[in-house]
Amino acid sequence: MQVRKDYAEVITRKFPEAVVIAIAKDAQGKYNPITLGWTMITSHEPPMMAMAVALTHYSREVIEAAGEFVVAFPSSTMAEAALFYGTHSGRDIDKLKEHPIATEAASQVDALLLSDAVANFECKLESKMVVGDHMLFVGRVVASHMNTDTTLKRLYTLAPDYRMGAVSADVSCQS
Amino acid sequence: MQVRKDYAEVITRKFPEAVVIAIAKDAQGKYNPITLGWTMITSHEPPMMAMAVALTHYSREVIEAAGEFVVAFPSSTMAEAALFYGTHSGRDIDKLKEHPIATEAASQVDALLLSDAVANFECKLESKMVVGDHMLFVGRVVASHMNTDTTLKRLYTLAPDYRMGAVSADVSCQS
Repeated sequence: MQVRKDYAEVITRKFPEAVVIAIAKDAQGKYNPITLGWTMITSHEPPMMAMAVALTHYSREVIEAAGEFVVAFPSSTMAEAALFYGTHSGRDIDKLKEHPIATEAASQVDALLLSDAVANFECKLESKMVVGDHMLFVGRVVASHMNTDTTLKRLYTLAPDYRMGAVSADVSCQS
Repeated sequence: MQVRKDYAEVITRKFPEAVVIAIAKDAQGKYNPITLGWTMITSHEPPMMAMAVALTHYSREVIEAAGEFVVAFPSSTMAEAALFYGTHSGRDIDKLKEHPIATEAASQVDALLLSDAVANFECKLESKMVVGDHMLFVGRVVASHMNTDTTLKRLYTLAPDYRMGAVSADVSCQS
């Protein structure tokens, strides 16, 4: 049975929520990663992905100006980095310098792949739209990469307190 | 370490993927549910959500014409219904008649809440955009509802074969 409540309370039922890390090059030439929980696939052919970035965030400016970016699916081993990149601004610091992680050159866009991620997708900015207090970016995937270690698991936000980790199908828990 | 592969192979690393069921009223007056895996939150204030629906799907026409809809977060007990609503077309059948589930009237839009869902969000269509082979709908949330049973868990697609179920944080599995 459903009971009407404030949105702020009801939306806490969304977890676990998969996170991505988007990486784009800023005007100073530094690669800026940002952790995002609001992302989705939007097209099968051609492959496209969308992500929402707060209008006030530095990454919004960076992605808009760069016109290209990488979308990484971080692995559950990357929770600490994901938390750092999601709670600091590239306007103030060089996130990859303050909290280094392994990266690799992308092949089709001027951005970085995250070496320990489950997967990385190189994207060209296809369209953008302001939606409330966020900007929705749609990228066309131009190259895809996966980790040679296929046992790695994606990273999810598990609760409103930014706790992040891996998830498993409940059937696994029962076995 | 990353290795470049075809998108079709790499994207299979996305699972588990949370699913929603969107419900809108069609021109014949029947409420049409569709299960969608490509959804996201897009704004905090005002609250907004986006979902991608294949351009060729009946639900694309229905949602576009209705201009309002409910986004339900199905519970893991609703896997069978979610699979049915996601693999049949409302152009051919009355999905809720063929595969009935408990529903409740919405309060602000002419659509239905799913009684056994974890949560339901009533939405007014705010904007839309064609992205590749899908249409991206953005809805503004005008009313939110949650299940009185707060132990229910969201439903996820677990693998490319449409297998659906609940997930738990890995820490639970280890305990």
